[in-house]
Amino acid sequence: MSMLIDPPHIGVLPCGPLGTIADVAGVMVGHCTLDDGPIQTGVTVIHTHGGDQYRNKTPAAATVINGFGKSIGLMQVEELGALETPIALTNTFGVGAVAQAQIRAAVRANPGIGREWPTVNPLVFECNDGYLNDIQALAVTEEHYQRASDAANIHVPRGCVGAGRGMSCFDMKGGIGTASRVVTVAGRIYTVGALVLANFGRLPMLTLDGAPVGRMLAKRAASAAHASAEKPEQGSIIMIVAIDAPLDGRQLKRLSARAAAGLARTGSVYGHGSGDIALAFSTAYTIPRDADFITLPSLLADTRLDPLFRACADSVEQAIVDALWSATSLSGRDGHRRLSLLDAAPDLVQCVP
Amino acid sequence: MSMLIDPPHIGVLPCGPLGTIADVAGVMVGHCTLDDGPIQTGVTVIHTHGGDQYRNKTPAAATVINGFGKSIGLMQVEELGALETPIALTNTFGVGAVAQAQIRAAVRANPGIGREWPTVNPLVFECNDGYLNDIQALAVTEEHYQRASDAANIHVPRGCVGAGRGMSCFDMKGGIGTASRVVTVAGRIYTVGALVLANFGRLPMLTLDGAPVGRMLAKRAASAAHASAEKPEQGSIIMIVAIDAPLDGRQLKRLSARAAAGLARTGSVYGHGSGDIALAFSTAYTIPRDADFITLPSLLADTRLDPLFRACADSVEQAIVDALWSATSLSGRDGHRRLSLLDAAPDLVQCVP
Amino acid sequence: MSMLIDPPHIGVLPCGPLGTIADVAGVMVGHCTLDDGPIQTGVTVIHTHGGDQYRNKTPAAATVINGFGKSIGLMQVEELGALETPIALTNTFGVGAVAQAQIRAAVRANPGIGREWPTVNPLVFECNDGYLNDIQALAVTEEHYQRASDAANIHVPRGCVGAGRGMSCFDMKGGIGTASRVVTVAGRIYTVGALVLANFGRLPMLTLDGAPVGRMLAKRAASAAHASAEKPEQGSIIMIVAIDAPLDGRQLKRLSARAAAGLARTGSVYGHGSGDIALAFSTAYTIPRDADFITLPSLLADTRLDPLFRACADSVEQAIVDALWSATSLSGRDGHRRLSLLDAAPDLVQCVP
Amino acid sequence: MSMLIDPPHIGVLPCGPLGTIADVAGVMVGHCTLDDGPIQTGVTVIHTHGGDQYRNKTPAAATVINGFGKSIGLMQVEELGALETPIALTNTFGVGAVAQAQIRAAVRANPGIGREWPTVNPLVFECNDGYLNDIQALAVTEEHYQRASDAANIHVPRGCVGAGRGMSCFDMKGGIGTASRVVTVAGRIYTVGALVLANFGRLPMLTLDGAPVGRMLAKRAASAAHASAEKPEQGSIIMIVAIDAPLDGRQLKRLSARAAAGLARTGSVYGHGSGDIALAFSTAYTIPRDADFITLPSLLADTRLDPLFRACADSVEQAIVDALWSATSLSGRDGHRRLSLLDAAPDLVQCVP
Repeated sequence: MSMLIDPPHIGVLPCGPLGTIADVAGVMVGHCTLDDGPIQTGVTVIHTHGGDQYRNKTPAAATVINGFGKSIGLMQVEELGALETPIALTNTFGVGAVAQAQIRAAVRANPGIGREWPTVNPLVFECNDGYLNDIQALAVTEEHYQRASDAANIHVPRGCVGAGRGMSCFDMKGGIGTASRVVTVAGRIYTVGALVLANFGRLPMLTLDGAPVGRMLAKRAASAAHASAEKPEQGSIIMIVAIDAPLDGRQLKRLSARAAAGLARTGSVYGHGSGDIALAFSTAYTIPRDADFITLPSLLADTRLDPLFRACADSVEQAIVDALWSATSLSGRDGHRRLSLLDAAPDLVQCVP
Repeated sequence: MSMLIDPPHIGVLPCGPLGTIADVAGVMVGHCTLDDGPIQTGVTVIHTHGGDQYRNKTPAAATVINGFGKSIGLMQVEELGALETPIALTNTFGVGAVAQAQIRAAVRANPGIGREWPTVNPLVFECNDGYLNDIQALAVTEEHYQRASDAANIHVPRGCVGAGRGMSCFDMKGGIGTASRVVTVAGRIYTVGALVLANFGRLPMLTLDGAPVGRMLAKRAASAAHASAEKPEQGSIIMIVAIDAPLDGRQLKRLSARAAAGLARTGSVYGHGSGDIALAFSTAYTIPRDADFITLPSLLADTRLDPLFRACADSVEQAIVDALWSATSLSGRDGHRRLSLLDAAPDLVQCVP
Repeated sequence: MSMLIDPPHIGVLPCGPLGTIADVAGVMVGHCTLDDGPIQTGVTVIHTHGGDQYRNKTPAAATVINGFGKSIGLMQVEELGALETPIALTNTFGVGAVAQAQIRAAVRANPGIGREWPTVNPLVFECNDGYLNDIQALAVTEEHYQRASDAANIHVPRGCVGAGRGMSCFDMKGGIGTASRVVTVAGRIYTVGALVLANFGRLPMLTLDGAPVGRMLAKRAASAAHASAEKPEQGSIIMIVAIDAPLDGRQLKRLSARAAAGLARTGSVYGHGSGDIALAFSTAYTIPRDADFITLPSLLADTRLDPLFRACADSVEQAIVDALWSATSLSGRDGHRRLSLLDAAPDLVQCVP
Repeated sequence: MSMLIDPPHIGVLPCGPLGTIADVAGVMVGHCTLDDGPIQTGVTVIHTHGGDQYRNKTPAAATVINGFGKSIGLMQVEELGALETPIALTNTFGVGAVAQAQIRAAVRANPGIGREWPTVNPLVFECNDGYLNDIQALAVTEEHYQRASDAANIHVPRGCVGAGRGMSCFDMKGGIGTASRVVTVAGRIYTVGALVLANFGRLPMLTLDGAPVGRMLAKRAASAAHASAEKPEQGSIIMIVAIDAPLDGRQLKRLSARAAAGLARTGSVYGHGSGDIALAFSTAYTIPRDADFITLPSLLADTRLDPLFRACADSVEQAIVDALWSATSLSGRDGHRRLSLLDAAPDLVQCVP
């Protein structure tokens, strides 16, 4: 069976015990998956810590690698270097509903929001799953966000789940992937975790741990139905990077920029129509909603960041590989079907590691 | 009666025949106003031209002066320099519903969206009207967007209408304001129009055509209920600038940045909690959805932009003054009430021009 | 005599004891002035603290309001949020020489630079003083930087000194201006200081404390030699803001952006050809060159920044006024001459405060 | 002999007839090399066209991948989307001298500069060649720029020449590399050319066409003198991308961002201390210095850019490979020595293609 084939281990850094973003202590992930004929979509929620995210904001920053995307929330993250809701992922047309759900959840927990307190900044990322999913149905509702949020856990299902349900990647089945890396910096051990919503790439680009697997597959598939190299990319990838090292917003922006390196190594050149966005957050401290002064832990010096940069790139690349390996073949709207990598090319995949 | 007092004319440039953003030919504005006890809010829609905005995209760019805001859509505008929906304004918690309405309207007009065509980028700006409006009610629905859009017209109501319904400005009643300026550049006449959603400022800051009116009013009001200089600003201002000159996205970004000058002259220092955003668009040409090559008209040279920069700053300042002058006193949720400038200080206002 | 007329006090905040950027403890300023017929230029140096700037870097950030400028050093400041040399100001064609001088000074003090240690990032800002100064002579040399740096002191000469020697402002004599403001935030007293190199604006724009003085002067001067409203602006302004509050790079970037508000209130709309740049730095702590961890003082919360934003805008506007008030009439190359504001309009100026 | 081994061809796109950046018609490159004991450095100049670059400006834009760098000129390129001098490359401490030389050359050709005309914006990129070169000697002078500029030609020497003389890459000898790719878009043939100044990377990172060659070499070298994986990176890479397709500044910025993908595929994760900068320019048209209107050719639509993005990434990766292949072993200051890749690992290199 194809599931017996292990994916290649990217780079030389070891991964954490779970091998997921939840290796960064405190991080929890939940999914709500919609699977109903032409409706193949969902919502994924990442909690950066177990408490109230509005009262204790999470230091964070993002890099927009290619801004063909419809996310909400990044403007304020850029200005303030902090998150104040869980991170939500869904399909392109589900952003509005999920943002409203985030607002309602925050107001429920903090009735002062929008009254004596400031409003809350929803943070929702998206990819276009319209090949498999009937995206025009606007099937994602506020309730789905809440279910995904409630399901949050340190056990992270991956593949065709949550927001990843209907996603495609390199003309095959994409979805949720996750990975982690552990590094020692300045005598301390830090963990970097990545979770991706992988929905990008055309088959001929696919590079697995340096091997141009996609080129071989595309040749073989030249006469087959799923060859479509000539069509423009309409995908996207969202890359969420968690770290337990004490970094501030500016440093997290630097870290998030290194996701682009991991992405490039899988064959992407950040296509025109691909919304490629990375967000990095730190679990080392939180920023209280209302205080005169913010006391930070001692921050890791910028001169010491290189191992973390490498861990970021490697865990993002590994998470993309994981999304491909975890996916299962799926049929969606109008008879559209995506084969998983393991179904499409079990023999080739076997050669990679 | 206070309405007899004319507002000061900002600067030395003349305005267009309507004195509104609709002096830029093709631009139309519609409002949907919600006025139901504690619900004092609404939606305003600006059409950049009379055709299908998705098939013929409008060149545009934005400047985020202070990013404490929850708008949706700017990331793609930054990347591609173009709009593909009308511009919508509403309250902070209405963004999700209005974005969904924009998606549905675009899909209705272009059923290929999200299927064989790319998805559509909703563009919704917001301010927090929570002082007068029960923002937690999430009263804005998709239908309100459609009504505002359908009402679009070259006659532009201003004051407590549409998205401006519940807004506050300098601790008085704010809302929608608009203005225009006409300049001659390189032997041709160009029109710059501004429309603002004004919801910013504390009373002592207010500067009217250079006069520190707010300081005087604040002294007088020191013992009165509406003095609140010590409270942090939770407002925002959205500044939409239209121009009929042939400019590309990069140049429109430069133009939008000059809105900050007009805003500053009213007393703002871009407060921490104020989402201050300017977007500029050109009506001189559109960008077809699907073409190999884009043929632009000859662009005005950067070296010739100074008069347009001045027209932008002046029309934005004038539009803010217009919002204050057009507002009427209003009561909202929980007995909250905002006096209009003309009600709060008819004598002082009379002295300004 | 005109010098008896006090300039208007901008805003309501008090200034510090010196009324200059040196009210921020530790800041010192030195000038080297070149006055030799057609050579009317110089160098100004700001030390952010009394120690070695490379070993103990100063937290800082900049906002490029209009990027028509030729400064060196901002890219690394943006990336790392820190300075590692004193801040230098000079004319546009002096940047190269001054940057080399900064390198040599840093290497002298730290011979490991460019060998076992990283290189050093020179930071030189410029304005074009070519109306009065023979800028093509490239008269500024490395020695002039060293002299200005050696002259650094808490007593700050202003007007036609240092880099300000040949600068023009609103078609009159510009140059160096400085100011300070003191605010109480969270129970503590903080000082904001500004120093500007003012070389921008056309006469009709000039606004003094809200009064359109320039318009009046331009009318009067309509037939006089120094009227030149029709010529495009080729000036610039550099605004350096010092603060003793504990802010990080991201917050200092927010602070620096408020310089644009002070600038706008003097009549600028950030002209196409004007390189308008603001840099803010904090003296509350330094960042050691080589450490695993950086321990910061507790940072002032973003929610508490509004008074500092106001102090920044007010001190920048005051510093521009100060530059005009401190200037004296000067003749330079090819018979070019700039009148000081006090010489050009003693009667009008008298009316402003 | 090692020179008989051909480097791998990156990707599937064909290269142009010269296989260099000069395949983009009009582009010329010149070097001035300093080779004098501990002085191992130089200057490289790229002319974007054969005419006067100040009178006919070249559309261009840049992406700062990691801003640990000391270049001059990018602020104005970002604002105006155009170059007005040739592009110069040199060592970190040579920027000032080369910038002055660019100013003098521009003034010589256009005596109105800095008088009735605006000043000129020098554009100088740099890497730190301090391992082999005595960078503290500040050996680069204005004359060297002029010589490199005068030597400009369509024949592009690569390797240890010009600015590449003293550069290191992956702990081996780096320097100048160049490559080109040809693509068909919308029925027309376009050429993308890249020239890199490669001075980045630690040996274990090196990836050659997907193969982790550096890891193998580092193991072998573990006991050898040139193993230095534990030292932080102090390098940089400058990537210049030329294209003959009609793109505007915004599109060229998008193109330049794809250089990061090519760089990542060689093993870089954009290290903290590495100034990684890409600049892209188009030769399809120029922007006249003084005109009311700028008439552009029809621009290639953004939706058609994907093949150019791929050509950019591939040509940058190929140019880096070319720099390694073209380098020869070199000794510099204090007995420091860098082996070329072909000398360090002739057997391994032989296996790659």
